Amino acid sequence: MGGDSGPSVTVPACLSILRRHLTVRLLLVGDESQIKLYLNDLSASVLSRLEILHTSLVFTSEARPDTILRSGRDSSLFLAVEQVRSRSAHACISAGNTGALMLTARHLLKNIPGVEKPAIMAILPASRAGGFTYLLDVGANIECTANQLFQFAMMGSVLVSSLAEKTRARVALLNVGTEAHKGKVEIREASVLLAACKEFEYVGFIEGNQIFDGLADVIVCDGFTGNVTIKTSAGAVKVIQNLIHQSIRKRWYYRVFAFWMKPFLRDVRRALKPSRYNGATLIGVQGVIVKSHGNSDRAGFEQAIEHALRQLEFDVPDLIAKRMQIPIEHFVG
Amino acid sequence: MGGDSGPSVTVPACLSILRRHLTVRLLLVGDESQIKLYLNDLSASVLSRLEILHTSLVFTSEARPDTILRSGRDSSLFLAVEQVRSRSAHACISAGNTGALMLTARHLLKNIPGVEKPAIMAILPASRAGGFTYLLDVGANIECTANQLFQFAMMGSVLVSSLAEKTRARVALLNVGTEAHKGKVEIREASVLLAACKEFEYVGFIEGNQIFDGLADVIVCDGFTGNVTIKTSAGAVKVIQNLIHQSIRKRWYYRVFAFWMKPFLRDVRRALKPSRYNGATLIGVQGVIVKSHGNSDRAGFEQAIEHALRQLEFDVPDLIAKRMQIPIEHFVG
Repeated sequence: MGGDSGPSVTVPACLSILRRHLTVRLLLVGDESQIKLYLNDLSASVLSRLEILHTSLVFTSEARPDTILRSGRDSSLFLAVEQVRSRSAHACISAGNTGALMLTARHLLKNIPGVEKPAIMAILPASRAGGFTYLLDVGANIECTANQLFQFAMMGSVLVSSLAEKTRARVALLNVGTEAHKGKVEIREASVLLAACKEFEYVGFIEGNQIFDGLADVIVCDGFTGNVTIKTSAGAVKVIQNLIHQSIRKRWYYRVFAFWMKPFLRDVRRALKPSRYNGATLIGVQGVIVKSHGNSDRAGFEQAIEHALRQLEFDVPDLIAKRMQIPIEHFVG
Repeated sequence: MGGDSGPSVTVPACLSILRRHLTVRLLLVGDESQIKLYLNDLSASVLSRLEILHTSLVFTSEARPDTILRSGRDSSLFLAVEQVRSRSAHACISAGNTGALMLTARHLLKNIPGVEKPAIMAILPASRAGGFTYLLDVGANIECTANQLFQFAMMGSVLVSSLAEKTRARVALLNVGTEAHKGKVEIREASVLLAACKEFEYVGFIEGNQIFDGLADVIVCDGFTGNVTIKTSAGAVKVIQNLIHQSIRKRWYYRVFAFWMKPFLRDVRRALKPSRYNGATLIGVQGVIVKSHGNSDRAGFEQAIEHALRQLEFDVPDLIAKRMQIPIEHFVG
């Protein structure tokens, strides 16, 4: 039910996933009558792997997240996470209220043993490598200790190593300078821990202007900094897209050549397309929870589901659990 | 001597300023022989308002900022700030080592009485209004108390009110959400102080994606967050510019139409041109200190000088001093 466009985006995305992945089963949690509007002409194969769990209550994006535990326990958002807790589902994907999803997930799903704090991990474009960079935490924890930052690095590197099939992930810390004496004390302390760890390749501090350069597979920071960082990037991209459109409208011959320019504009739009990078993971809890952007389109919501599927394929929570059983002294001693 | 291109950029920018402002006098601090390379065919008017203070020592951008007080006291950077302290100059503009400039300025120039911590104030493009937004602190203070954030707001609003001739500046706090319960405790406390203050219009919390929307004239945050924010924006802009150029090179007919597309690309480049927004001010010290970006071009360095001149015209440090004499209780009581 979540996201700006609700089932009109999420349900078609689900159907597309069911057609592409013949072993995937999807449980749609929400208002049955609204969901059914988008369930026409389905093949027997798709129908047999689709279930609806009906509830008419929707927890809106505007609602205060913390009210979900008091008055939102019948909402589609709460019930969807509950399916993961009760093992009726392996993963939960939602385009709904971010705060409420994270709160519910942290409330219902226990942390992986050894994990101090779960974190939200976002996907960023990495310009040089043509690939992705994962940034965490982007909002679950306003402040973080050195040990928590170290754990974020460890969890992120486990995910990247399995999903991208890299033997050793490159990990960086986001800071205000690259020299050892720069930044907050917890970042400097985390840097010492990361440098001593052999499980991944620690590439040191990176600054805000380097986060898209593909210098690291995993960039670690506290949730306040990460949240401001991804939102600022989104704001900068929006400004430039507006500039491009303003400029085109300004000159008559741009309209004449509009036909020729279309693929060029499509290139830029596609490269920046948020759907390619859609799907933030709550990492560190016992289960796979992926948050799709509220304004994502069908392709974007599909991407979020795909992201959850890949985490299930490699059983990322289990890999993290195994890594977390090993005491930190083993890595940094 | 500072910046990636040294006197080849800074000296021509100075000459251009002297030609445009007939009452301005400039003191060039640095290596006389290098400076003189760019002093050809000058009019008597320009020559009479130009002085050189010779020193052959340059404090490089790569040097550790804190060594300037030990071994850099004969450097052009240190001597330039010293001219402000000794009242031989009204303002200092530098494209050199940011950390060393800020350290020297804070060491030599006293804080304006009442100011707890000076802050670095950057200029951002404001897309909607077509104007500017000032962001502070972008790097002087890694962590800030509520009272310090309040003072940043006060100083920023004094500068904006005088320079932009606005009666009441709109002030916002950068946060991870717009609701009152969001963010760090010092931000929430600062919000209470700002909301009670009648000297400016407090517009509340804004998020990273809103900083270019022109919702506020002054955006306040701690120096860590501000530094990551401006660097992330710069990184995002660079990524998109690369995408545009890659896309153009990819199709042969874009090269054919390159002539027609030139003004379009120029529009985008000009709108994003860092030189328009060049010149970060160290606000809160007794004197005007403006830092130009190290890779700025002549137009950018001119912009930084212009920014210093406008602050002198309105005597911003004096306006701040007057405001700071009034106890905080007067504003928020």
